[in-house]
Amino acid sequence: MSDIQKNTEELDKISISAYGKARASVNENPLSNEEVQKIDEYFHATLYLCLGMIYLRENPLLREPLKIEHIKRRLLGHWGSDAGQSFAYIHMNRLIKKYDLDAFFISGPGHGAPAILSNSYLEGVYSEVYPNKSEDSDGMRRFFKEFSFPGGIGSHATPETPGSIHEGGELGYSISHAFGAVFDYPNLIAVTMVGDGEAETGPLATSWHSNKFLNPKTDGAVLPILHLNGYKINNPTLLSRISHKELEALFVGYGWTPYFVEGSDQPSMHQAMASTMERCITEIRDIQKKARDSGKAYRPRWPMIVLRTPKGWTGPRKLDDHFLEGFWRSHQVPITDVLGNKSSLQKLEEWMKSYQPDKLFDEAGALRSDLKDLAPQGKRRMSANPVTNGGALTHKLHLPDWREYTVEVQNGGKQLLGSMQQFASYLRDVVEKNPTQFRVFGPDETQSNKLGTIYEAGKKVWLGDYLEEDKDGGNLAYEGRVMEMLSEHTCEGWLEGYVLSGRHGLLNSYEPFIHIIDSMVNQHCKWLEKCLEVEWRVKVPSLNILLTSTVWRQDHNGFTHQDPGFLDVVCNKSPEVVRIYLPPDANCLLSTMDHCFRSQSYVNVIVADKQEHLQFLDKEQAIAHCTKGVGIWDFASNDQGEEPDVVMASCGDVVTQEALAATALLREHLADLKIRFVNVVDLFKLIPDIDHPHGMSDREFKSIFTEDKPCIFNFHSYPWLIHRLTYRRKGQHNLHVKGYREKGNIDTPLELAIRNGADRFSLAIDAIDQIPHLGNKGTSAREALLNQQIKARNYSYHEGVDLEEMTNWVWPY
Amino acid sequence: MSDIQKNTEELDKISISAYGKARASVNENPLSNEEVQKIDEYFHATLYLCLGMIYLRENPLLREPLKIEHIKRRLLGHWGSDAGQSFAYIHMNRLIKKYDLDAFFISGPGHGAPAILSNSYLEGVYSEVYPNKSEDSDGMRRFFKEFSFPGGIGSHATPETPGSIHEGGELGYSISHAFGAVFDYPNLIAVTMVGDGEAETGPLATSWHSNKFLNPKTDGAVLPILHLNGYKINNPTLLSRISHKELEALFVGYGWTPYFVEGSDQPSMHQAMASTMERCITEIRDIQKKARDSGKAYRPRWPMIVLRTPKGWTGPRKLDDHFLEGFWRSHQVPITDVLGNKSSLQKLEEWMKSYQPDKLFDEAGALRSDLKDLAPQGKRRMSANPVTNGGALTHKLHLPDWREYTVEVQNGGKQLLGSMQQFASYLRDVVEKNPTQFRVFGPDETQSNKLGTIYEAGKKVWLGDYLEEDKDGGNLAYEGRVMEMLSEHTCEGWLEGYVLSGRHGLLNSYEPFIHIIDSMVNQHCKWLEKCLEVEWRVKVPSLNILLTSTVWRQDHNGFTHQDPGFLDVVCNKSPEVVRIYLPPDANCLLSTMDHCFRSQSYVNVIVADKQEHLQFLDKEQAIAHCTKGVGIWDFASNDQGEEPDVVMASCGDVVTQEALAATALLREHLADLKIRFVNVVDLFKLIPDIDHPHGMSDREFKSIFTEDKPCIFNFHSYPWLIHRLTYRRKGQHNLHVKGYREKGNIDTPLELAIRNGADRFSLAIDAIDQIPHLGNKGTSAREALLNQQIKARNYSYHEGVDLEEMTNWVWPY
Repeated sequence: MSDIQKNTEELDKISISAYGKARASVNENPLSNEEVQKIDEYFHATLYLCLGMIYLRENPLLREPLKIEHIKRRLLGHWGSDAGQSFAYIHMNRLIKKYDLDAFFISGPGHGAPAILSNSYLEGVYSEVYPNKSEDSDGMRRFFKEFSFPGGIGSHATPETPGSIHEGGELGYSISHAFGAVFDYPNLIAVTMVGDGEAETGPLATSWHSNKFLNPKTDGAVLPILHLNGYKINNPTLLSRISHKELEALFVGYGWTPYFVEGSDQPSMHQAMASTMERCITEIRDIQKKARDSGKAYRPRWPMIVLRTPKGWTGPRKLDDHFLEGFWRSHQVPITDVLGNKSSLQKLEEWMKSYQPDKLFDEAGALRSDLKDLAPQGKRRMSANPVTNGGALTHKLHLPDWREYTVEVQNGGKQLLGSMQQFASYLRDVVEKNPTQFRVFGPDETQSNKLGTIYEAGKKVWLGDYLEEDKDGGNLAYEGRVMEMLSEHTCEGWLEGYVLSGRHGLLNSYEPFIHIIDSMVNQHCKWLEKCLEVEWRVKVPSLNILLTSTVWRQDHNGFTHQDPGFLDVVCNKSPEVVRIYLPPDANCLLSTMDHCFRSQSYVNVIVADKQEHLQFLDKEQAIAHCTKGVGIWDFASNDQGEEPDVVMASCGDVVTQEALAATALLREHLADLKIRFVNVVDLFKLIPDIDHPHGMSDREFKSIFTEDKPCIFNFHSYPWLIHRLTYRRKGQHNLHVKGYREKGNIDTPLELAIRNGADRFSLAIDAIDQIPHLGNKGTSAREALLNQQIKARNYSYHEGVDLEEMTNWVWPY
Repeated sequence: MSDIQKNTEELDKISISAYGKARASVNENPLSNEEVQKIDEYFHATLYLCLGMIYLRENPLLREPLKIEHIKRRLLGHWGSDAGQSFAYIHMNRLIKKYDLDAFFISGPGHGAPAILSNSYLEGVYSEVYPNKSEDSDGMRRFFKEFSFPGGIGSHATPETPGSIHEGGELGYSISHAFGAVFDYPNLIAVTMVGDGEAETGPLATSWHSNKFLNPKTDGAVLPILHLNGYKINNPTLLSRISHKELEALFVGYGWTPYFVEGSDQPSMHQAMASTMERCITEIRDIQKKARDSGKAYRPRWPMIVLRTPKGWTGPRKLDDHFLEGFWRSHQVPITDVLGNKSSLQKLEEWMKSYQPDKLFDEAGALRSDLKDLAPQGKRRMSANPVTNGGALTHKLHLPDWREYTVEVQNGGKQLLGSMQQFASYLRDVVEKNPTQFRVFGPDETQSNKLGTIYEAGKKVWLGDYLEEDKDGGNLAYEGRVMEMLSEHTCEGWLEGYVLSGRHGLLNSYEPFIHIIDSMVNQHCKWLEKCLEVEWRVKVPSLNILLTSTVWRQDHNGFTHQDPGFLDVVCNKSPEVVRIYLPPDANCLLSTMDHCFRSQSYVNVIVADKQEHLQFLDKEQAIAHCTKGVGIWDFASNDQGEEPDVVMASCGDVVTQEALAATALLREHLADLKIRFVNVVDLFKLIPDIDHPHGMSDREFKSIFTEDKPCIFNFHSYPWLIHRLTYRRKGQHNLHVKGYREKGNIDTPLELAIRNGADRFSLAIDAIDQIPHLGNKGTSAREALLNQQIKARNYSYHEGVDLEEMTNWVWPY
């Protein structure tokens, strides 16, 4: 009955056609005729549901003749990739049953949700989770109507979708999410459908290399299925229009063993997919067995599948004179004019009936029970795999007591120390204590970011080849805890997959280049926010992003390395899911990180530089300060019991040092001045409490910043963000915010600060300019400060370094 | 003398070592002994200069014994990739001379500037551009000292670098920039050095596919040299640690013919590189000749080179017990402690002297004249190629008169029309009139964005395979003007390369996914800003980004497709180089685009939705309105000659419609109300004039918005951006900004607007709440509005569409 042709190079010329009997790398016919028929019927049942979702609001089983009033008023949804995706899903079901596999499904293609939803519905999960979408005609009707309907079921694999950890709304992250999910889950298999449109994106193109970071002994496996669906919205896809030889070479080059399943003839395609998928699963199990039996990891050539089927497969080949199946016209709603064209309505009815719903569903509207038996049971059903509701699997992190890693600080502002290095010891022990549920991710910068100490507890995972030099501090290992690839996208994608499947992690990055993943972080925030509305979703660990190598110490690397604007992007996300911290010193950094590691369902962004900086607060002070998130620093203030003349405020480490130095300069030149020093750790404290759960009330705000005194606020990032956060505060006109104003070059730290008006001299001068009634004293102080600034600038200009009295400055009081 | 071994699969196991005699795909020895020696000397001269740049402030030719005071106080710069890059540069020089080639060099690796700078200096260009860096010991001293020195020469190929259009500060864009630069320059060759770190990034990984978009008849060529330098900052690179077989397969899969040159032995490496590069250049010329002679384009397998050399090549193999050459320790400053360690200082001196500066440079300090003859002359020198100062080659666009494409608008707000489709006709004619200097770029969305009309003038470039379906509206062609690949990164990279080399273009994208290239746009802005400070740089055409498929009409696609926050990222860039426009209707869109196409050295961001929307202004009104950038709309205001009770303001197309509808509702319910209607096209009008060249004075601002009346401002994007722009305005407390507040789901347009408080009812209610003394009239109007809102919501909830009276609403006055 089947007739699978082996792919060979001679087929090269015709392999770009998706039509005909199956051509496949594996040439076996493992299924009986009866099995083929049942699988095909199940397949048709899913496809019937897909069309139902797109079109119907009534008459779900077409037991009445189809009329316009059965059709939704607004037609939405995507047909194009549904058949191919469902095909893969169903064939995986067979193997899950046969081998009792622990597997779940990632749907990469953007709008393939009907395929996933229909399978979840047929395996009964959807009705268990959403009882009103019951397995009968009434439930089916609701299921259909609510798809892509206001307030209803999304057209991607949204958080509401059982079995999904990957929405697929923005493309490119399916493979990295899949790898993230299977790290440290040795028995898990992520069946990952990669759209051929998605495959053109940069993040996806490089994520194939994730196989150099997967340990067959301790991690699970990813089975990618590249779906050569042929078309995107309006264009052919690149990978479907290159020769078979190139396509094969590409994936061999990426380190995979590609198996091909190509065609449109359903019976032979079922045989081809069944045999090929079984080959892949067998290889995966063999690889794992070899590594586990021997206790030795290695990098195998993991199997993958290239599945070429026509876009809109099983639909009409042509509508009028236009191609539908096998062309981009089948991408979205395949017949668009059914509401206004009787003949189109009739075509739709014929098409839907061609799947024989009466044969597939029983009287009540439930799937025929012998077909139902094709799906796995209980948690083995892919849409019920516990990993896809990862929070339910989460174990709390074993955290060492961060207080034991703190710095002794006798007096604030008296000593210089590398906060990041201090934090690294703590982080090393977090790694140590959590050998299977915590990983650190970063694009080749962990050591540069002064976190190298963590390699003592967990090395860098590296399944690539080794050279003798690696022994010289290479810190590479087959089994490790640190994931470094020079792709922010892949690192972030891995981390997202890792936390969504219930584990914990931290991404560290140079601050300027975190913008590379703006959009990924946006999407993760959106995912988290929606999850809060989905009752059955258990909260997952927060995604922690540590930004270091920050703008104020990227003076030497120049303008391209200076961009602290990621915070602006994060601030646009929902207050329910984002947190931003700028700890000013080591103890505050430790306290903040401990807090972040305990939190759930946030994106935490922590900004701290890696160089040596002043230390301000001892352990107890740091606890108090970080708990409040903002506070007056007594050691640096001299307005005790009085109204201040000026408030000097800061948020960020380097800028706090400059603000403090400015305070000292003011006191040096204007001894009578009453100065209050304020520091902000938790950026959202600045927002009114009605807008963010961390926000201060106006009263609190006033008690710290006053309502009528000038405040010189030195901010780590672009200054306008502070204005945006405080625009509703009374007295916001008195806030004079300094920060990075996009003025940079190859500089010294001082010069960079001066260009942006965020150096100690400029801040002190600003204060003088804003405080009324200073008179001559003010004028002469101003002049003296200007001279000091000029002198310091001249020195750096000639020597290429800052005056030592600047770099080693400490608080003199 | 040479001994090149052909790469074979048997070499697989050892090919990961970078050491020894050259192994190469091409096994010829084209150079005489004398040529090898001279090339090697030239090579050494560049390397001597690289070290000089990193270390020396005095004693440039080491004619005195090296002392600490000759060393810079702060050591900065990167040695790691210098040798490999310079090696490639020098070998290209030979072929430029031999074949009179028109070529330039793109340096992908982040910190490889010393290699580029030293070559520019030796070929005399640097001294021509910067006369005080003369070709003598004094000029050399200044050249050395100012490298990576405050205010000096950057450590990347910054805009100040002659011959650079690609800074390389952020990684991943070298290949897409190169392709962009050679499109429509048929004789140009971009020699493109790709770092193996960079090669791990997503954008780079997918940009290899650019070869499916290059026409050998009408475009130039890119010669990529993948530099297998072996290491990143602290890690091995992926591509240097996979087998030869995989590496070769990968590039065959990407559609290239990879040629390998691997080793460390200098004489044999010179032979190998000379022969391999010559083979590549010959192939490029043959491919082009075939296409041009036959008049038929095709997709060849373009040649590329994989160059494997040790990181830090030619440096000491070890320092004490640690590997230096051939390991990541040579990434940056190779010997770090020369300021504090006499023996290290001595080692540096010995190393530098090993290049024999006395032999290479004459008495005055200039390169020996017989070596100088190795470089090309005049504009053939890569660092003097005119394309790298693209503005000098720019021709003005031939623009049709946009006024001829405008819509007839008798009365504002009375008719619905697709602004984007209207604009498309104009754009089609821009394409038509500029067949070799204008391209449209976009990730598979041009048609979806309603710009499909442009295919009448220029089809989509497609060098991949063709199928019969393509004739059914595929709009593909070998020669076209529209570039579509589902990679925002590649599209943006191509466009950047295209404009930096002097041509014009437009990127169109769905609004939410433009965040994917936040970081690229950041970097392009930084490039443009620095160029303004470089005297010899001629302004290039602006980079135009058209955002459509916007948030307010992504209701049906759900939350992942809703993110208008790109504007926040752009607002952080320098006011000198960014412009943001939100034209409310077709005529304003036309006027705006005409303006953008004429502008130079900006990033213009234009936001306009693709659906049918109300039209407001006729041609003359649109000219006046767009010229001012902000204005009161008389047709929608009834405060003529009086103080308004409230200002209704808007910025964006959909939100203008809602604001106008709110105005109508207010007048319906509260006939006495004096309402002023304001629209903003040019977002930066809102900023004070001292902060942005487009900013309004406070007086102008007051004359439009008043200082004391409530203003309900409906904004297209996140509302906080308006507060950020206006925080300094007197009366900013009266601005009540509505916009997208990150509240979305599968919705109808109305429901989405309501969730975010940006719908007509909410706006009208807000106005009532803010206008004092409305009394009972206000209360009952408020109630009526709430009821109308509820009714409309209920309807969409049940029907899945909005009430027709909402969607077809027109201005009733």
